[in-house]
Amino acid sequence: MKNLTLDNITAAAVDSFAGLPDARRRELVQVLVRHLHDYAREVRLSHAEWRAALGFLHRVGDISTPERSEFSLLSDVTGLSSQVDLLWSQAGATPGSNLGPFHAAGSPWRDNPADLIGDNAGTRVLLRSRVLDMQGQPLAGAEVDFWQNAADGLYWQQDPRQPTDNLRCRLRTAADGSFEIATIRPVPYQIPTDGPAYLELVQPAGRGSWRPAHYHLIVSMPGHRTLVTEVFDAEDTYLERDAVFGVREALVGRYADEHDPAAAQRLGLPGPTVPVMRMDFRLAQA
Amino acid sequence: MKNLTLDNITAAAVDSFAGLPDARRRELVQVLVRHLHDYAREVRLSHAEWRAALGFLHRVGDISTPERSEFSLLSDVTGLSSQVDLLWSQAGATPGSNLGPFHAAGSPWRDNPADLIGDNAGTRVLLRSRVLDMQGQPLAGAEVDFWQNAADGLYWQQDPRQPTDNLRCRLRTAADGSFEIATIRPVPYQIPTDGPAYLELVQPAGRGSWRPAHYHLIVSMPGHRTLVTEVFDAEDTYLERDAVFGVREALVGRYADEHDPAAAQRLGLPGPTVPVMRMDFRLAQA
Repeated sequence: MKNLTLDNITAAAVDSFAGLPDARRRELVQVLVRHLHDYAREVRLSHAEWRAALGFLHRVGDISTPERSEFSLLSDVTGLSSQVDLLWSQAGATPGSNLGPFHAAGSPWRDNPADLIGDNAGTRVLLRSRVLDMQGQPLAGAEVDFWQNAADGLYWQQDPRQPTDNLRCRLRTAADGSFEIATIRPVPYQIPTDGPAYLELVQPAGRGSWRPAHYHLIVSMPGHRTLVTEVFDAEDTYLERDAVFGVREALVGRYADEHDPAAAQRLGLPGPTVPVMRMDFRLAQA
Repeated sequence: MKNLTLDNITAAAVDSFAGLPDARRRELVQVLVRHLHDYAREVRLSHAEWRAALGFLHRVGDISTPERSEFSLLSDVTGLSSQVDLLWSQAGATPGSNLGPFHAAGSPWRDNPADLIGDNAGTRVLLRSRVLDMQGQPLAGAEVDFWQNAADGLYWQQDPRQPTDNLRCRLRTAADGSFEIATIRPVPYQIPTDGPAYLELVQPAGRGSWRPAHYHLIVSMPGHRTLVTEVFDAEDTYLERDAVFGVREALVGRYADEHDPAAAQRLGLPGPTVPVMRMDFRLAQA
């Protein structure tokens, strides 16, 4: 178009993507372009602000690596990730929560029950769970992809002192839908504080950098909606101020001492009791 | 917040930036967060789509360098840059147009009139302009930052065969507000076609990659709004389908042969005439 004005620029930009052959992709792009234009107009974005925004995105790109996604962190600290998680959480099913930047494909398979403790320092605990359908029936053979941080607050990818694949595994639920993971109690940790997401947005807003301690899980089963979620610790200091908006009440569990001398022995604990977090996962149908 | 739901997540995310001390920055961030959330909800963004979008942004970051801003290109091909340009174009003043990715600070100062032809191949022409205020009065000593591509379609930063600073300069307008640049007629060129902005958005939409030939200028004068704009060639093939929405009718000029034996001699042209593009720039008050 030769005579673009403020009155026709948004329509021209949206229309320019009308040729995208995939209808869904076309919708995603066209609605995004409209929102971008509406945003610029609503705030009357100046050139200096536009350049500052581009500079910010460059810095986000510069610090990102295949192992560290600052874009993902940006999505997390703006609540966008949680918005998507909640959009796809069906009433009655376990709600979704942040995937986070530390999930990596190819986690090693373990037998169920699994023991991930190894040489890790920290409080030895059990996660005892069941995977259920919406009617409460057990889902046998569901895949569970599990990862968490170590006692120093770091995931194995962040910490060369940890062995490869430390504190992560995949396993399948038993015939009664159950799985058990012997592990250490995760600890609160900070989101990366050396990048633009924290330094230029979160910190200037006076927000904290801490996330309450949590397990990460992806639970999947054919015919059901894959659940990406987290399990939080009811006693955590940061439960009310998670830097990435991940906490939902249904995902908060409490460790309780259970009488289980066999498990205590397996975990190398002195007494007849073991601290157990019980949290079941209910999957919506696909 | 402990119990985040689809009903409160957007408000929680917006509120989390209430502590940004600078009011304007707070507005920019909070309105953007709201639009991002509204977008995700409006299109019901899936996790796979969200991950695909993050992957796209990673690829945009990966191909970007200090000399090549794929984020800027993305802003251009979605019309966002033009939206900002038009937002700040005041009625009666020369409209703004794309800064583009090839502006770099520190262009060498030249005397006015300037001759940038050097060893460049191409059609030798003159750009004869005046910088005026809104009342049509000349603005003497206004700063003009000028850059364009060479006969091969490339800017000097893209092309190691061109000398440093080829076809760019800064100069000041004369007492009558005039400036003159002897140069070569710019040629149409393609936006970068090896990055995600083109390969994943523009090309799949069946849009072209070409920009009509143009000069880039930034005209600035204390007390006046800085004008970032372009000047287009009325005879250009791509005037109606600029890949980045830069064309406005007021910025389209036509080369006309002017009788000027002295200038013809300076430019090394055989006849008594010189092809001249005349385009004045009218600056709004700050």
